[in-house]
Amino acid sequence: MGEERRGISRRGLIGGGAALGVGAAAVGFGAGRATAVETERAGAAAAYSLYGAHQPGIVTPVQDRLHFATFDVTTDSRAALVDMLRAWTDAAARMMHGDGAGPSGPTSGDYDAPPDDTGEAIDLPPSRLTLTFGFGASLFDDRFGLSGKRPAALDPLPHFPGDNLRPERSEGDLCVQACADDPQVAVHAIRNLARIGFGTVGMRWSQLGFGKTSTTTRDEATPRNLFGFKDGTMNVKSDDRDALADHVWVGEDADQPWMAGGSYLVARRITMTIETWDRQSLREQERVVGRTKSEGAPLSGGVERDQPDFERAGREGKPLVDPAAHVRIAHPDHNGGVQMLRRGYNFVDGSSDIGRMDAGLFFLAYVVDPATHFVPVQMRLATLDDMQEYVQHTGSGLFAIPPGVRRGEYVGQGLFSA
Amino acid sequence: MGEERRGISRRGLIGGGAALGVGAAAVGFGAGRATAVETERAGAAAAYSLYGAHQPGIVTPVQDRLHFATFDVTTDSRAALVDMLRAWTDAAARMMHGDGAGPSGPTSGDYDAPPDDTGEAIDLPPSRLTLTFGFGASLFDDRFGLSGKRPAALDPLPHFPGDNLRPERSEGDLCVQACADDPQVAVHAIRNLARIGFGTVGMRWSQLGFGKTSTTTRDEATPRNLFGFKDGTMNVKSDDRDALADHVWVGEDADQPWMAGGSYLVARRITMTIETWDRQSLREQERVVGRTKSEGAPLSGGVERDQPDFERAGREGKPLVDPAAHVRIAHPDHNGGVQMLRRGYNFVDGSSDIGRMDAGLFFLAYVVDPATHFVPVQMRLATLDDMQEYVQHTGSGLFAIPPGVRRGEYVGQGLFSA
Repeated sequence: MGEERRGISRRGLIGGGAALGVGAAAVGFGAGRATAVETERAGAAAAYSLYGAHQPGIVTPVQDRLHFATFDVTTDSRAALVDMLRAWTDAAARMMHGDGAGPSGPTSGDYDAPPDDTGEAIDLPPSRLTLTFGFGASLFDDRFGLSGKRPAALDPLPHFPGDNLRPERSEGDLCVQACADDPQVAVHAIRNLARIGFGTVGMRWSQLGFGKTSTTTRDEATPRNLFGFKDGTMNVKSDDRDALADHVWVGEDADQPWMAGGSYLVARRITMTIETWDRQSLREQERVVGRTKSEGAPLSGGVERDQPDFERAGREGKPLVDPAAHVRIAHPDHNGGVQMLRRGYNFVDGSSDIGRMDAGLFFLAYVVDPATHFVPVQMRLATLDDMQEYVQHTGSGLFAIPPGVRRGEYVGQGLFSA
Repeated sequence: MGEERRGISRRGLIGGGAALGVGAAAVGFGAGRATAVETERAGAAAAYSLYGAHQPGIVTPVQDRLHFATFDVTTDSRAALVDMLRAWTDAAARMMHGDGAGPSGPTSGDYDAPPDDTGEAIDLPPSRLTLTFGFGASLFDDRFGLSGKRPAALDPLPHFPGDNLRPERSEGDLCVQACADDPQVAVHAIRNLARIGFGTVGMRWSQLGFGKTSTTTRDEATPRNLFGFKDGTMNVKSDDRDALADHVWVGEDADQPWMAGGSYLVARRITMTIETWDRQSLREQERVVGRTKSEGAPLSGGVERDQPDFERAGREGKPLVDPAAHVRIAHPDHNGGVQMLRRGYNFVDGSSDIGRMDAGLFFLAYVVDPATHFVPVQMRLATLDDMQEYVQHTGSGLFAIPPGVRRGEYVGQGLFSA
């Protein structure tokens, strides 16, 4: 697909077109293989391909809805695990294309056998579904002979001040991130992978996200988190090759060669005490964030995508961006230049036993190395950022995201075959 | 708005047009006041009015997403409760129109006061939001002087065989059903009502639904539940005046006059053991439902919306629709002709501690009287329907839904003013 072709494709699309254009532009990343838009269908009919240099669902323009799940392997058989990954890969390719999880689909095949698809996505379009697979540190124990393949980057995250992590919402041998514009499509995908994995894996935990909080494109409006503020203004963009190479993709010099072209996913379930936040003045909310609530502009002035001027002082010589403002503590300038590619989602999981909404941000960030790109930033946030008064980390997962899949291969094949 | 005008409106709309048309057709129900489409904006920009003979969110064409919440009153002050209902009514009218919950909105007003809207719906269109309010039996104890106003229809539901109801997912003094095509809009509405109610009510439980499982219109495709089957094929339609009068709306002869024009909402959280279901053959799944999985046609033949022929026998003289099939047990012909207006949603709330998805159907049905229109049907289902092997009721709520609101009034005013 050449430059001309892509230009035509981008211009020819309506609605979903902007997003598709960026997806198409992703062709060209990496070493000749790349995640590509599979078809030029627009809107809900748009579909991404599973195959490419990198897995889909990372630089892919962020879809509206999320279903994220982790699984623990329940067998000691390496062969069974590999067979399942092969079956997951086949099913993922089908479902991303808008087809059933198996070759016969939900309503045909052997009438006296269970259908190879569960059926709730019949007649639903692909909805830009992406499926992204990862491996947790626990997979690299001695059950499957993988202990020598464990990347150093999977070292456990440290305890951060204020962490209140619940084991039943943390970690897992495997993870699957399903993103789609229709939540029923995302749920259907996770459910069918769980069905295929029956006897090999059991679901450890899962999280639905109803609203995206980041974009990876330049032409979309920045969405809002449950603090009511725009989130992810300074996110890594999917067409920024240099930033992706520096901050997201694992290089050829990786300690574990099977991870070249992959990434690391940090998932954090961040509960927001929204009732407390809602009782703060607009002034205090903006001070804590360091941006205006309406436009998302830095309090130092300008418009949303202008860089904050952390030195600029206002009345009484005080900096306009507070010393403890989130935007200051998190900014790359104060974190050795590191950036993360964020794909988080808003969540609400009912309410707590004291009558508060169990709500927040399910943070998903892809980084080249969590030791350099997440841990120091999160340690600064946990100790210096005034926003931490309104959040609590209640779940955590760290996963190695292997590179993309070639046709005929299965996801993570490099881990098992080398 | 006359017949002609409505016809024009229906034809003039694209996309959301079909749904809007039916909404508009609802003008004319009831006693001259009715829930009307507020504007003729199409698609996501479409908005319904809070005001009318009946509350919105009942006959309204079913939106894609749900956030349902119940609240317990935390004060003994009747005046405080009434003040909150007044504030809720004002906020509901604003939010359904696409505005903020309060007059100044999320980013203006007194800079040193909390904003009167939380902000996460800034720039989001109305998304056909409806808010529907109800009163549970517990509100009619002696705290607020309402014990003499309690409708007989709020008598507690009996225990049904197989019920496994959890108190923390059941009942409540008040309920609010928020439906919208954008989940962030529905969540925003519930969150802002909770914010406004702070000090007067606390949230008891809430439930998100990601995919509708019923329609109330004739021209929409029937959606699918997590068994993968079409659901709600025989649902009451919003243009069927006779069915609504017989089965949904409380008449002028109600035991409690303040309920005339209202309805009763039965909410049941129905957990599906989808992993077990998924291991059944297609033949068994269709036998249990009594319909084909592909088209949703009765197993006695014909197409989806044909009536099942319960007498028709196949090989060996066995009825084509099994004696224990769901469609047979639930059919109005076997339930004294009663019908319910259903507006249920698919849900997934993570996974259980044995690695299964916590998933199912959040059943919402509006009926004229649960004693005649829900209890006998559910008792038949709980004892005779083979589908019960795959479901468990894990939450329950019964609420009196007062009639619609006139401009200048507040929701439920008849209960407090008479």
